Amino acid sequence: MYDVIVIGGGPAGFTAGLYTSRAKLETLIIERAYFGGQMSIANQMENYPGFEGISGSLLADKMLKQAEKFGAKAILDEVVDLDLDSKIKKVITRSGTYEAKSVILCMGASPRKLGLPNEEKLTGSGVSYCATCDGAFFRDREVAVVGGGDTAAEDAIYLSRFCSKVYLIHRRDELRATKTLSDLILSNPKIIPVWNSVVEEIQGEYMVEGIRVRNIKTDDVTDIKLSGLFIAIGYMPNSQLVQGKVELTGDGYIKADENMQTNVPGVFVAGDVREKQLRQVVTAASDGAVAGSSAEQYLSKNKL
Amino acid sequence: MYDVIVIGGGPAGFTAGLYTSRAKLETLIIERAYFGGQMSIANQMENYPGFEGISGSLLADKMLKQAEKFGAKAILDEVVDLDLDSKIKKVITRSGTYEAKSVILCMGASPRKLGLPNEEKLTGSGVSYCATCDGAFFRDREVAVVGGGDTAAEDAIYLSRFCSKVYLIHRRDELRATKTLSDLILSNPKIIPVWNSVVEEIQGEYMVEGIRVRNIKTDDVTDIKLSGLFIAIGYMPNSQLVQGKVELTGDGYIKADENMQTNVPGVFVAGDVREKQLRQVVTAASDGAVAGSSAEQYLSKNKL
Repeated sequence: MYDVIVIGGGPAGFTAGLYTSRAKLETLIIERAYFGGQMSIANQMENYPGFEGISGSLLADKMLKQAEKFGAKAILDEVVDLDLDSKIKKVITRSGTYEAKSVILCMGASPRKLGLPNEEKLTGSGVSYCATCDGAFFRDREVAVVGGGDTAAEDAIYLSRFCSKVYLIHRRDELRATKTLSDLILSNPKIIPVWNSVVEEIQGEYMVEGIRVRNIKTDDVTDIKLSGLFIAIGYMPNSQLVQGKVELTGDGYIKADENMQTNVPGVFVAGDVREKQLRQVVTAASDGAVAGSSAEQYLSKNKL
Repeated sequence: MYDVIVIGGGPAGFTAGLYTSRAKLETLIIERAYFGGQMSIANQMENYPGFEGISGSLLADKMLKQAEKFGAKAILDEVVDLDLDSKIKKVITRSGTYEAKSVILCMGASPRKLGLPNEEKLTGSGVSYCATCDGAFFRDREVAVVGGGDTAAEDAIYLSRFCSKVYLIHRRDELRATKTLSDLILSNPKIIPVWNSVVEEIQGEYMVEGIRVRNIKTDDVTDIKLSGLFIAIGYMPNSQLVQGKVELTGDGYIKADENMQTNVPGVFVAGDVREKQLRQVVTAASDGAVAGSSAEQYLSKNKL
């Protein structure tokens, strides 16, 4: 029987585990794929406070070791089902069933991908899913943003602050983004909208060198030379496991109050899988600290 | 004219400055006393994710250099007045007047002190104002908590997880804390309430070795040997500067929405001065990232 089971081994989960194990709570962190989660794919991070430059996987390793130092146990295993209704929660994995007095959900979110052959290979080498994270690496370079929603529009405006040119590639002939954002896009001399178009090919062997774009109305094909491709076509929260068990938003994110408490007593949430505005390593870590602290208070007040 | 002026140079202010300068916004950080703020007094921090152990002042220095690397300018100067009503904000310091299109308030909070002779000298050497931060350093040791509110009660329960004995010293004969917390205190065999009492003396030359407690009803004096003294008699937000200019809570904390937007357009808040639950370096840094990002979006949408 654990005091706390943390599902998901990224910055949110590690920090939750750090806070609960430092409070002397028996803590198990279960990660299904690789420790670090999404941050592991970042070759170079410059915006996690305290590190001028560090790879995501090294930072993840530091966070994991720090939680383990205080007694948190971390395993690789896949959670296949959860029973959250009773006071004692059951976490069913491929290898067995674990019991805990509280659960912290830190399963993260995955960016939607274009599904192009080179896309995965060039992620971190010009392909990015986060302008706030990686934009600054493309100063005075030409880049493209793919998408038509608020995030794509905000990313294009953000990148136009320091990139020399920003193509905004969208499959329709107008943005889904709010009027304010759309007007800003259209009046920004550095942003070049490419309407009715899809990216058909990402060019480059080791680094992004360009893209091939197809106009879906005329079938015309154009090659654009550029160094960065920012894909902003949405995120998918990894919340399948708790569908019907915990309250979700329409988009599938887990709802919580400011203490990271979900609608189920003893079940907390932290990081990208939570309904929130800014998804960054530092905001995920902060969520983890709050969720860990809330779990500690929950366990103090509810003798189980 | 700056794009962003950040008032306060602690983890919230440095991270806000990191995010705005990385977005190529002209950023000025103004700190009145010493860079790092409250975290500077921590000799050893173990719960900032990414660092197994680091002094607060070294971590503060890393955060400051990181923001400066992207162009943020940081100065030591005291802000004496603010004009936040117009679109262009005025920040009046001892040395002059600075103008900015947006302001991020990161002035922090200060713990209330007992006001005893040894208190400041032994802070970080047994005297602490944060059980969540420093409690784990006192495993199997005897400690005391001073105070009678929810925070004091929660601190005592937290410390009882791993300290051998926790004295709870309160000037009245019952706690102000909620009934649930009070019941937990009274039923916890490791917690020893010391009613109607005040700490009169902190003993120890280089480390806390004990305290002298006076019963204010009987005037009896008792010496208690212990290694840690946790002072939990409240925090004071450093919000005097914005009284009457920005909406505050009854306790003087600055109110904001989840994007760190205050009730005044173009004025954001981050860190301990904000109304929030958990005050830690990582939660302050996260606030700073959100506030910096919100300021960037505000400046994109409002051409000034």
